[in-house]
Amino acid sequence: MAYILSVFAVRNLLVLSLALNVSLILRVLLLHDSQDGSFNGFFFAEQKEEALANKITRLSSSVAPSSSLTMAQGDEDRVINLDHGDPTMYESYWQKKGDETTVVIPGWQFMSYFSDATRLCWFLEPEFAKQIVRLHNVVGNAVTENRHIVVGTGSTQLFQAALYALSPCAEAEPISVVSAAPYYSSYPLITDCLKSRLYKWAGDARSFSKNGPYIELVTSPNNPDGFARRSVVNGSEGILIHDLAYYWPQYTPISSPANYDLMLFTVSKSTGHAGMRIGWALVKDEDVARKMTKYIEINTIGVSKDSQVRAAKVLKVISDNSEGPNEGDSFFEFSYRVMAKRWKQLREAVQQSGLFSVSDFPPQLCMFLNRVFEPQPAFAWIKCEGDIEDCESFLRGKKILTRGGKHFGVSPKYVRISMLDRDKNYETFVRRLSTIRS
Amino acid sequence: MAYILSVFAVRNLLVLSLALNVSLILRVLLLHDSQDGSFNGFFFAEQKEEALANKITRLSSSVAPSSSLTMAQGDEDRVINLDHGDPTMYESYWQKKGDETTVVIPGWQFMSYFSDATRLCWFLEPEFAKQIVRLHNVVGNAVTENRHIVVGTGSTQLFQAALYALSPCAEAEPISVVSAAPYYSSYPLITDCLKSRLYKWAGDARSFSKNGPYIELVTSPNNPDGFARRSVVNGSEGILIHDLAYYWPQYTPISSPANYDLMLFTVSKSTGHAGMRIGWALVKDEDVARKMTKYIEINTIGVSKDSQVRAAKVLKVISDNSEGPNEGDSFFEFSYRVMAKRWKQLREAVQQSGLFSVSDFPPQLCMFLNRVFEPQPAFAWIKCEGDIEDCESFLRGKKILTRGGKHFGVSPKYVRISMLDRDKNYETFVRRLSTIRS
Repeated sequence: MAYILSVFAVRNLLVLSLALNVSLILRVLLLHDSQDGSFNGFFFAEQKEEALANKITRLSSSVAPSSSLTMAQGDEDRVINLDHGDPTMYESYWQKKGDETTVVIPGWQFMSYFSDATRLCWFLEPEFAKQIVRLHNVVGNAVTENRHIVVGTGSTQLFQAALYALSPCAEAEPISVVSAAPYYSSYPLITDCLKSRLYKWAGDARSFSKNGPYIELVTSPNNPDGFARRSVVNGSEGILIHDLAYYWPQYTPISSPANYDLMLFTVSKSTGHAGMRIGWALVKDEDVARKMTKYIEINTIGVSKDSQVRAAKVLKVISDNSEGPNEGDSFFEFSYRVMAKRWKQLREAVQQSGLFSVSDFPPQLCMFLNRVFEPQPAFAWIKCEGDIEDCESFLRGKKILTRGGKHFGVSPKYVRISMLDRDKNYETFVRRLSTIRS
Repeated sequence: MAYILSVFAVRNLLVLSLALNVSLILRVLLLHDSQDGSFNGFFFAEQKEEALANKITRLSSSVAPSSSLTMAQGDEDRVINLDHGDPTMYESYWQKKGDETTVVIPGWQFMSYFSDATRLCWFLEPEFAKQIVRLHNVVGNAVTENRHIVVGTGSTQLFQAALYALSPCAEAEPISVVSAAPYYSSYPLITDCLKSRLYKWAGDARSFSKNGPYIELVTSPNNPDGFARRSVVNGSEGILIHDLAYYWPQYTPISSPANYDLMLFTVSKSTGHAGMRIGWALVKDEDVARKMTKYIEINTIGVSKDSQVRAAKVLKVISDNSEGPNEGDSFFEFSYRVMAKRWKQLREAVQQSGLFSVSDFPPQLCMFLNRVFEPQPAFAWIKCEGDIEDCESFLRGKKILTRGGKHFGVSPKYVRISMLDRDKNYETFVRRLSTIRS
């Protein structure tokens, strides 16, 4: 008995010691972060912190008595990471759909580099191309006639392919790349990553006034703030890239098919399959589509066939269900309802807390859902009111990880918060947010 | 009856007209090619020509009477494309293996961007990492202890990740990137694609004598010529990248586990699954591995999970079979035998023709296959003897598409020919080669 007691005492000490380590390591990391302070991409230092904390929690749980776990892993103590838009919210829908979207790939299939050597984009799977066109026609969110489809390893790669294709080769100076603030935080990083002589990030489109050619990125609905957008630079030599990742009916009313020269889409935000790394571009100009294809050829010699095949299946099921008799159970109905509920919860929490504000959006008719509604974006763009100057740090103190305004070219009083996390995390987040007082 | 005859006459006219179109289009394309003449990446202009020819052949065949097909599609008239190393040779093995390497992926799995947020390479699937280590241990071709694994969209992306990670940030001038000629034709293109200020292509490593830091690419066995290689620059500030895509027992005797700081591998050339776009790097230095991960994060926010899962399965089956009782039917036994047979056929054809030459390789003991053999590379590096100055053009005239020496930094008397095409194409190629006379 004394032996058992002493074993327990040792275990408790170990748990205590591990907890102390977690706290110390987090402190060191936080110090390091605040010293560094620079945004360094999709995967933040803060995530490492959370991952580390979770890892150590798991380690602790394997030695700690179960009673001490409840508090350590309690919802109120847990780090909620809503920094990036990992679309895990959608898992439950696809789980419910069971085998409908299961793919079976035999070992000898899709071995070649080529999907269809007669196509301009020779690594694009024909079935995927077909389902892209069909889904756009079903939803009515983009014109596909007289467009070339280029597939990419996510729309991130396609953005770079577009920069490569649209940059004038002969210019002595790199072409300026701009976007109206708040702009997607990765645009500057991606553009300047390799210090290219072809193009360079030139910041907020609203304050851009240089003569000559430029590339303007128009994200609509916008990441991070969810508003519909048009180009803002008043220049005659602008080339536009339209990032339409969020132009889907769960996020915003589909008023008419988008009809631009170069439009980017991704499965990450449309169907929730971020792990596939699949995006597509609809491109009017053949020469631009050809150069984009060339970039992807040089960068990665094409795009995973397995993921294209899987994406084709998912798109097909979405189109089938949107048109069929089970329309009420369709993907966009489900995701529209979840987003509507979440935005209602968020607005209630913001009101209860009194410390934050979020924008209102004008309601509009969605031609696809045949319903008038307010946009319910994939990210919440929240402002800390009063004298909180650094909203990201403030919320980090409440163990809510977000991305601060400075990464999007605006005031640190703003933060971007993912609305696409799993139910459990989202519920914990809104509950915690509602109780935050100054 | 008169009606049927007239229908036939119309059909015959159509076939004739289509044949004329093919000939005219090819002529235009060939003219365009010879005017252009520049190598522009993985997917050559010549391929479009072949693809177009094949497409039109297919179009014709849908209207042409079967009797007229025999000649049009006859083996002796067909374009054989051995320009790039599309590893379709391996399909028959995996087909024979049936369900062993089939993957089943439900629609709700692998949706997140993250594979394991606690890992340095947070988008690397743990099972794939496990199978990489296991296969290297089974084959004995690389040291995996104290190495970080970084997964990439093919080793092409990892090469760029390595350039990004190894380039000094603070230097005013881009770091020189060199490789001994003949070097892989894509290295210069990839390096200079975006005109980076971080690094620049500086050509043949043998003639490089600049002071200061440089990056040397060592491909061993080498693409295109198949020889084992070591670094050649005699500088004190060299950083090495070892591209070991072909260091597998079907191509070369495995003498000892490679033990370098940064080693690149790919499934395209090891298992034949080019369509997966999966490669991996074994990296000694943690900071370098972290920066490579950062590049892939910025470039494509990770790597297809579906392809990683599939690659894990394929690697597992190879390891299982290499160790198990069916060793004789193992992947490397099969592929070793095919390569041995093809090299024998090639050497015979070269001898019969008398117009070409290929290198001899010294035999060595393979520790894995426990057998002494001569390297049998994935590419044949063939020299046109006599007064043929442009071997690529000469063979194109024989409807054999290859990649000429100038793309590899050497004389146009050389061509690189893929040894990894399907049986039917390879057989036609060696038969045709053997009959070529001056």
